[in-house]
Amino acid sequence: MKRVYLDHIAATPLLPEVREAMRPFLEDAYGNPQSLHAAGREAQEAVETAREDVAALIGAQSSEIYFTASGTESNNFAVKGMALGQPARGKHIVVSAIEHSSVLNSVKALERQGFGATLVPVDRSGRVDPADVERALTKETVLVSVMTANSEVGTIEPVAAIAAACRSRGLLFHTDAVAAAGSVALDVKELGVDALSLAGDQFYGPKGSAALFVRKGVRVVPLIDGGIQEGGRRGGTENVPAIVGLGRAARLARRDMDARRTAVVPLRDRLLEELPRRIDHVLVTGSRTDRLPHQASFCIEFVEGEAMLLSLDMKGFAASSGSACTSKALKASHVLLAMGLDHATAQGSLVFSLIGTTASGDIDDLLEAFPPIVERLRRMSPLYTEYLKERGS
Amino acid sequence: MKRVYLDHIAATPLLPEVREAMRPFLEDAYGNPQSLHAAGREAQEAVETAREDVAALIGAQSSEIYFTASGTESNNFAVKGMALGQPARGKHIVVSAIEHSSVLNSVKALERQGFGATLVPVDRSGRVDPADVERALTKETVLVSVMTANSEVGTIEPVAAIAAACRSRGLLFHTDAVAAAGSVALDVKELGVDALSLAGDQFYGPKGSAALFVRKGVRVVPLIDGGIQEGGRRGGTENVPAIVGLGRAARLARRDMDARRTAVVPLRDRLLEELPRRIDHVLVTGSRTDRLPHQASFCIEFVEGEAMLLSLDMKGFAASSGSACTSKALKASHVLLAMGLDHATAQGSLVFSLIGTTASGDIDDLLEAFPPIVERLRRMSPLYTEYLKERGS
Repeated sequence: MKRVYLDHIAATPLLPEVREAMRPFLEDAYGNPQSLHAAGREAQEAVETAREDVAALIGAQSSEIYFTASGTESNNFAVKGMALGQPARGKHIVVSAIEHSSVLNSVKALERQGFGATLVPVDRSGRVDPADVERALTKETVLVSVMTANSEVGTIEPVAAIAAACRSRGLLFHTDAVAAAGSVALDVKELGVDALSLAGDQFYGPKGSAALFVRKGVRVVPLIDGGIQEGGRRGGTENVPAIVGLGRAARLARRDMDARRTAVVPLRDRLLEELPRRIDHVLVTGSRTDRLPHQASFCIEFVEGEAMLLSLDMKGFAASSGSACTSKALKASHVLLAMGLDHATAQGSLVFSLIGTTASGDIDDLLEAFPPIVERLRRMSPLYTEYLKERGS
Repeated sequence: MKRVYLDHIAATPLLPEVREAMRPFLEDAYGNPQSLHAAGREAQEAVETAREDVAALIGAQSSEIYFTASGTESNNFAVKGMALGQPARGKHIVVSAIEHSSVLNSVKALERQGFGATLVPVDRSGRVDPADVERALTKETVLVSVMTANSEVGTIEPVAAIAAACRSRGLLFHTDAVAAAGSVALDVKELGVDALSLAGDQFYGPKGSAALFVRKGVRVVPLIDGGIQEGGRRGGTENVPAIVGLGRAARLARRDMDARRTAVVPLRDRLLEELPRRIDHVLVTGSRTDRLPHQASFCIEFVEGEAMLLSLDMKGFAASSGSACTSKALKASHVLLAMGLDHATAQGSLVFSLIGTTASGDIDDLLEAFPPIVERLRRMSPLYTEYLKERGS
């Protein structure tokens, strides 16, 4: 069976160039970057080159890049580290209601340490209104964190406006750019953010590769205490192959971003337009205008996301029903609920996210294979039967 | 120039079998283990197989193994997570004075949160006396952490005796086994530990691969909050290639541990005996009896460790002067100072640590190349000149 992978938001494949860049560091170049010998220097030089490439992707200085092992770690490091890093200020945090579980659960951890938090709502398209963020600020607020884009619904947030509101009040602002970095042009100076999280496996780099940008001068308490690595801010032997892969992926993303966008946007738009045309009771979720180039998401009413995924999988299509970090929890997505969808509709969440090798024919195949799947699942749905009865058909 | 790598304690090379096991997950098998499709299941199955292999290495159940990204992260997770996980108990921690910086700095982070801590001394060989641990316990003690072996001086600690003392008082006990696991037979049941840290790059597995064993029923607060991965105890997309590599390395370590020991112990012992015979004013550091099989460490008086490392490097030998996590900090090792060495002697710290491919001829070469290096460096040392003058020669 032909397999079509449409789950970019869960993980992207490694580009061959990235794999080649990593290869020496999985073979003979196994030194520890902290070692005072040739093997160590070779590793350290590779790490510092990668740091420059990651910095260049987001317009940062390389000294502002801290390598971590996941977007989740970067978010923990930023939210906990910045909140705890300003003890002279207050103990209140503002985040959007649709943040990733790593941000929301970091906030919960801080709440157990005496912090207060306000969740800012979103509109029907998943957009945070900067005015709502401003209204949530109190004299005690120390940190605001709003994601750059939400992978479940594709919406890109007005981060620059929110950052400006924070900066004018002297508040720190972090953005979780894991879903956006590498796919959307980002410049930390233009955005005006104090910290930004990104992860390599969202732009054809390796799993276990991620970084946190922290603006020079901003105090952040380490999440992982240890040795002198990463300027003493993040302990642990550097994962050299992963860091090298991240750097190369960043370099390629910077070079190819426009071409990649040009390739996937028409396919994404075709899905966003055609799926609701071919299947009844389908909502497009997220913004139509400010949207990740590779992401098409829907709620298919009267069908459960999990059942659709398993049926699609049997036909060779890999998709997701939301964040991989929560998908198996089988709860309605907090993102969709925050956008005002009801529980039943939110259960029908489905995300198709394209990768660089997605072909137009793959989308044709999906558009042909998917409607009969929905049809079949709906025939088994008591809710749908009831709906049809009520309609009198 | 022929290069001889004698820095096992900083990083080991990947075994070819480990690299081969990882390869599919760096190529076509790029799924996210949390995804509900074939690519996700393939990744998840590989992660669970690795978990079984890691568990088998230390006599644990696979459900007691949590994957992390470094030994440092495992130590942070254990020390902070277990200390914070028992709020009904007291706020006092006992650790040895020679713990790794990741343990000591985790303790410092807890001290900033109101915990108290006692550092237990070691003897001249770097050994912790279980009776000293018992004396350090208070009514407030909640957690004891003593390493299984110290990589800088090679000493293996009496962990089972310390664990027994803790268990009899109902106290939690963690051991940092990063330097020992994979090289020394360890069984968590025989040791009686509640938590144990290990890292793949210490036994021919990949960088970025590590695990924490936590005994079933022991509460540990997450260090990295996020999604449902690792039973909700450690968020972040699983680094599948690294985890697979760790699992394979654990399987091979279990199979080959005796053969590896048989290969390196005679070389280690040759170094421990010959170096002080060929060079004056050389101390062997650490225990002669309870010692890591691959580790030979010394203090070379009247010479600085860094200068020796650079000179050795120019001759093609890679060695270290202590933990890679602190080596570039250029401070005298807290381990050697705790063992009662004076600052000047501690500056001459040097560790040769053998890997599986270290040949007898490599040791011959080192024993020939090293004495002239020391000789040359001592000629430039004002301390040595002074010493010679005082001796009247």
